[in-house]
Amino acid sequence: MLRSGPAVLIAVAALASALAPVSAAAQEGPARPTIRDLGRAPGILSPGPLNAITDVAGVRVGQVTLRSGDSVRTGVTVVVPHGGDLFRDKVPAGLSVANGFGKLAGATQIREMGEIETPIVLTNTLSVARGIDGVLDWTLKQPGHEDVRSVNAVVGETNDGGLNDIRARVVTAADVVRAIETATSGPVAQGAVGAGTGTIAFGFKGGIGTSSRKLPYSLGGFTVGVLVQSNYGGVLSIDGAPVGVRLGRYYLREEVENERADGSIMIVVATDAPLSDRNLERLANRAFAGLARTGAAFSNGSGDYAIAFSTAEGVRRTAERRAGQASVADWPNDRMSPLFVAVAEATEEAIFNSLLKAQTTTSVIDGKTVTVEALDIEAVKAVLGEGR
Amino acid sequence: MLRSGPAVLIAVAALASALAPVSAAAQEGPARPTIRDLGRAPGILSPGPLNAITDVAGVRVGQVTLRSGDSVRTGVTVVVPHGGDLFRDKVPAGLSVANGFGKLAGATQIREMGEIETPIVLTNTLSVARGIDGVLDWTLKQPGHEDVRSVNAVVGETNDGGLNDIRARVVTAADVVRAIETATSGPVAQGAVGAGTGTIAFGFKGGIGTSSRKLPYSLGGFTVGVLVQSNYGGVLSIDGAPVGVRLGRYYLREEVENERADGSIMIVVATDAPLSDRNLERLANRAFAGLARTGAAFSNGSGDYAIAFSTAEGVRRTAERRAGQASVADWPNDRMSPLFVAVAEATEEAIFNSLLKAQTTTSVIDGKTVTVEALDIEAVKAVLGEGR
Amino acid sequence: MLRSGPAVLIAVAALASALAPVSAAAQEGPARPTIRDLGRAPGILSPGPLNAITDVAGVRVGQVTLRSGDSVRTGVTVVVPHGGDLFRDKVPAGLSVANGFGKLAGATQIREMGEIETPIVLTNTLSVARGIDGVLDWTLKQPGHEDVRSVNAVVGETNDGGLNDIRARVVTAADVVRAIETATSGPVAQGAVGAGTGTIAFGFKGGIGTSSRKLPYSLGGFTVGVLVQSNYGGVLSIDGAPVGVRLGRYYLREEVENERADGSIMIVVATDAPLSDRNLERLANRAFAGLARTGAAFSNGSGDYAIAFSTAEGVRRTAERRAGQASVADWPNDRMSPLFVAVAEATEEAIFNSLLKAQTTTSVIDGKTVTVEALDIEAVKAVLGEGR
Amino acid sequence: MLRSGPAVLIAVAALASALAPVSAAAQEGPARPTIRDLGRAPGILSPGPLNAITDVAGVRVGQVTLRSGDSVRTGVTVVVPHGGDLFRDKVPAGLSVANGFGKLAGATQIREMGEIETPIVLTNTLSVARGIDGVLDWTLKQPGHEDVRSVNAVVGETNDGGLNDIRARVVTAADVVRAIETATSGPVAQGAVGAGTGTIAFGFKGGIGTSSRKLPYSLGGFTVGVLVQSNYGGVLSIDGAPVGVRLGRYYLREEVENERADGSIMIVVATDAPLSDRNLERLANRAFAGLARTGAAFSNGSGDYAIAFSTAEGVRRTAERRAGQASVADWPNDRMSPLFVAVAEATEEAIFNSLLKAQTTTSVIDGKTVTVEALDIEAVKAVLGEGR
Repeated sequence: MLRSGPAVLIAVAALASALAPVSAAAQEGPARPTIRDLGRAPGILSPGPLNAITDVAGVRVGQVTLRSGDSVRTGVTVVVPHGGDLFRDKVPAGLSVANGFGKLAGATQIREMGEIETPIVLTNTLSVARGIDGVLDWTLKQPGHEDVRSVNAVVGETNDGGLNDIRARVVTAADVVRAIETATSGPVAQGAVGAGTGTIAFGFKGGIGTSSRKLPYSLGGFTVGVLVQSNYGGVLSIDGAPVGVRLGRYYLREEVENERADGSIMIVVATDAPLSDRNLERLANRAFAGLARTGAAFSNGSGDYAIAFSTAEGVRRTAERRAGQASVADWPNDRMSPLFVAVAEATEEAIFNSLLKAQTTTSVIDGKTVTVEALDIEAVKAVLGEGR
Repeated sequence: MLRSGPAVLIAVAALASALAPVSAAAQEGPARPTIRDLGRAPGILSPGPLNAITDVAGVRVGQVTLRSGDSVRTGVTVVVPHGGDLFRDKVPAGLSVANGFGKLAGATQIREMGEIETPIVLTNTLSVARGIDGVLDWTLKQPGHEDVRSVNAVVGETNDGGLNDIRARVVTAADVVRAIETATSGPVAQGAVGAGTGTIAFGFKGGIGTSSRKLPYSLGGFTVGVLVQSNYGGVLSIDGAPVGVRLGRYYLREEVENERADGSIMIVVATDAPLSDRNLERLANRAFAGLARTGAAFSNGSGDYAIAFSTAEGVRRTAERRAGQASVADWPNDRMSPLFVAVAEATEEAIFNSLLKAQTTTSVIDGKTVTVEALDIEAVKAVLGEGR
Repeated sequence: MLRSGPAVLIAVAALASALAPVSAAAQEGPARPTIRDLGRAPGILSPGPLNAITDVAGVRVGQVTLRSGDSVRTGVTVVVPHGGDLFRDKVPAGLSVANGFGKLAGATQIREMGEIETPIVLTNTLSVARGIDGVLDWTLKQPGHEDVRSVNAVVGETNDGGLNDIRARVVTAADVVRAIETATSGPVAQGAVGAGTGTIAFGFKGGIGTSSRKLPYSLGGFTVGVLVQSNYGGVLSIDGAPVGVRLGRYYLREEVENERADGSIMIVVATDAPLSDRNLERLANRAFAGLARTGAAFSNGSGDYAIAFSTAEGVRRTAERRAGQASVADWPNDRMSPLFVAVAEATEEAIFNSLLKAQTTTSVIDGKTVTVEALDIEAVKAVLGEGR
Repeated sequence: MLRSGPAVLIAVAALASALAPVSAAAQEGPARPTIRDLGRAPGILSPGPLNAITDVAGVRVGQVTLRSGDSVRTGVTVVVPHGGDLFRDKVPAGLSVANGFGKLAGATQIREMGEIETPIVLTNTLSVARGIDGVLDWTLKQPGHEDVRSVNAVVGETNDGGLNDIRARVVTAADVVRAIETATSGPVAQGAVGAGTGTIAFGFKGGIGTSSRKLPYSLGGFTVGVLVQSNYGGVLSIDGAPVGVRLGRYYLREEVENERADGSIMIVVATDAPLSDRNLERLANRAFAGLARTGAAFSNGSGDYAIAFSTAEGVRRTAERRAGQASVADWPNDRMSPLFVAVAEATEEAIFNSLLKAQTTTSVIDGKTVTVEALDIEAVKAVLGEGR
């Protein structure tokens, strides 16, 4: 349990977390398992080597965790599409909105232009402005950007107000820049880190989760990686097992009929398949199939968004391609279906990981101590092992 | 197995099917169970008394089954929103499209006006024109419609070309009129009837299915009813159990990597909650959560549509309300979430019923005898009963 | 004025109309001018050699005019994107809906797949089903299409019930096939022909109109062609001149405050620019700028649709490109603006032509003789010539 | 011409501007005319008494103009829907996006919930984050908002980087709060004020403009008010007269074929008609008809957005109505058309006013002195007066 004390500000870059047990320390508890550590492999396709969004070559993740005092439990997670000049060499992208109760910045321009020109930032609901300002700070100062006067910052959020003093708005633009600048490839810290530090899902501690799928060569051989910030409700089902019901904690159960299922989820999807923006939008849309399989309520107040982008060189919108007639790669409609299965599976698994990896978190909100427990691993195992 | 012989043309109105074992005879086999007959109750909410879309008061269903010769295995299913003048007293409605590979007639006007003014017709892909003509024939001849010159017929479809000689286009406008005129309240025939006569889902015989949910009074007390025409693919999961994998028949399994998962699903949602068209669109959207839980692949070539309408008198667009400032009932955003759970559950269950109730069907397509087997009930029971 | 007599069924293919004065005869009056014949050149860009949609190489137009007896004043106009196998070699396409009070068939699949696989058919509101059936008849019988079981027929409409006994539904699938089979390149008959035979715009006789723009080489050198079926209302403005007000006939004028401005417009846009489906949707959207400049009311009951497609070989979705990773041409976002200006100008001019070329038409509707007068050319000239 | 000097920070509240000639002083020149001052009355409907968005009762406008040194030429304009608790008593709203190249905050939630819960803020492209933060600062501190943890700030922008050192990002959250707190009913300052201080339209100085229409009683008697921030390009047409061409300054003119037409326009629409969110979205959409009539190019890089809300008490989403079944007022689809004409006219006129009222503005950008001239009133008069 976390006691009030000196501010602890921890930048959990993916690489850093791979080199040292920073995240475990930050979360004050033993390492927790992924769904595969429990012997379950959701879906029928295989993950990439890291089982993370960073299996898509070039994609980097950066996280800044803000934990301090009694009630700061928030942070920033960024996904950086490639290592070049993001603003000059844009990536095609698609956005799908299952429920638009959210404050996503950049939505209309993604849809109109079919592209993204910045890192994708995740943070808390009242810090979207800081996310935008951080993206601007970082983009405007990049070499060669002296004449840039318009930047479409993509910033998503979920509401961590249940564990974080969200009205204090402690996230700064500098935090966002730090998350971008420390982003790395390699393993991704999961659970109560970065933008997932204070989130809650299905009444348990949620957070950041990731997973990936690699298609066999005959289906294109592409990789699809997903990263989620889970903060929503419903009736938790893990790989088909009714965990929420068995544990007696679920939306609309008799005793607490009006228990809020609200909250939100941000889903970021990366792929190396050379997809058009339209097919990226369709890919994003299928992430919600994975979300549905976890038992999501898709409730009124939940902002459920998925953004997908392609890292393929053949579709990148380089300065040259943006200047005149170009030749671009295209993976056709008729061969999209396996990618759709991949994204649904990776989303489902990323969500399980966000829950399983998250540590119990305590905070003081409105003067009251609040503890949101981590999902009980032994209880989950029991439900997974029981007869139907 | 069905042998070629004299044409058999059977109008299976819901009431008729309740009075006599017509559908069982037509399907050549003993009655098959619903998911509840197997002792499973998907979700956490309770169904209405019929566990059918007709639990929403006033809603009627009509079905015409076309089975004749070797290769006619198709039909028409209609949902009639209320018993009054549908064109004069329109119902608010919303449409959600998960994947738009389909030929739904009426889509843009539903979206713009937020309403439906005809029965909703389901049939096969190449018979949408006959659906429209049938709706026009019926609407134009109604008393008081002598001056009607514009009708937005709502006609959906899935492709039953795997079991039906779809290119023969045997459905007529008269079949559609008959389905409308024989529509009744009460139990709804499920399985290989009406527009589900020739459909295939997950490699098994699919068809028409229905289910409902009734919310407790504290959550509004409303009923949500769903009717589906299932004809799609994926990896079948029944109430969380991996039926498709256990039975060795699923999309992307190693041996047949490119097995088609295409096909489509039409989902019709009725409710007596006084919802705005916007909230009906949101309600329709949540039907796809139920679809996802069955293991749907949401494949490229699948037309996945959900249409929701409200039967509440307080929101009906009567001639009087359409003439000037009116007062209408409204159930607010903030209380929508339980309805969202209801529609997801009812859709999932309606799909299970469409599969479980459907009989094995044989046809001759392109000179080859094709048999699509019904889901093996004993095998399903075994998978449902096994340990996780 | 047209008297009742033996049925006159006239297929007005574009080429035929160029060779013989069929359309003039059909319209019973002297040839009427285009806007350029009146010395006006709307906009700042130049038209192509035909000033027609057929300036886009490969595009063909076919029209069947149905005039018979007292009250049949309707028809079919089709636009055929290219001369090859439309179903196998699909064209990318985009749809924009300014007001969705219409019965456009094929809408959701255009949006999802970003393509068209049939001719585009225009007809009257209650004949959309016949349009679909005609497209199916024609598509299914093409060589090599023996296995085709799903066709997304694109059929738009406007309501000619003011001059045509629309409830009689005289258009047949065979009429549609004939329009497709007689489609030709070259000049396009305008005014009261084909699907424009019975339409009304701004209270004057409307109809079919066409125009084009050719960009200078420095802006890409592409051609944009537009064809409209005008049947809507508002306050007519011609090249900036207040014709509707001066002629005392406009929506909401004091004496007849509730005069209907309804009706609709279908706009078909062709270009040889190698555009993505997204940029074709954006191109279609700009057609409404041209519509707005004519004084359109965009009224509640007006179905205002624009469909744009590209004929460029480099973006055609051939069987080969649809089978695996492909290379496609792309004209970038950053250079789209001149094309946007082109489509707005061509739409505005096509509408003027649809009005100017249309002949006065008389019919008997509900037992009453109705005459809708052609726009008075001399009066238009007077308004165009007056001081501001 | 404006010389560098001590910073001048001027809050131009609408009332202030009505009481004292602050705006004229700020703009360093004599008062300039509206389009009606020039004797022209675009359209056929009549304006309200102020011919401003504030003709809609309860609507207030606040503006903060930031002019300082050589190169700060920017500001904030806010529209406040009503004088009560905006967050508790939300207004139904609709958003229409003609071209989504913009950074509008709040877009997806407006669409999903059909409502607005904050003032609408306009500012420059790189200051959207400050707009959000200002709205949060103001909303969170309102009495009774101690538990508010989620606010959907609506902040639009256009890019004033041609006259303003936009990369300096001088707008602060405090500026936004000040604009909200000084918002008043009454006349609205137009031209180079608030968010229009540094904007450019058609190559001339643009800015803030407003206009309104009041429908006759027989058409409902409602008022529609519009406020625009004009910053876009094209071929300027004023009340049908080709001003841009005559003055030799227009997009795509031969000498400067690639002259940028980019820039954007934000359009805010208020009405007292009791409209549903769907009909507000449709109303917003018709604003673009007015935009089109001014000669807008709707260019690739232009963010063209319209937001409409209703002030009617009968549709306000009060805490009580949001708690359970409610009765709300509704103006029906069938009577929307006159409102559509009203919004198109008011938008067109508001744009003319934004240009006509704006004073010539000079700045130093990237070390170069830039002067953007006001539209020459005498020249406009000449073009308006010439023969066609």
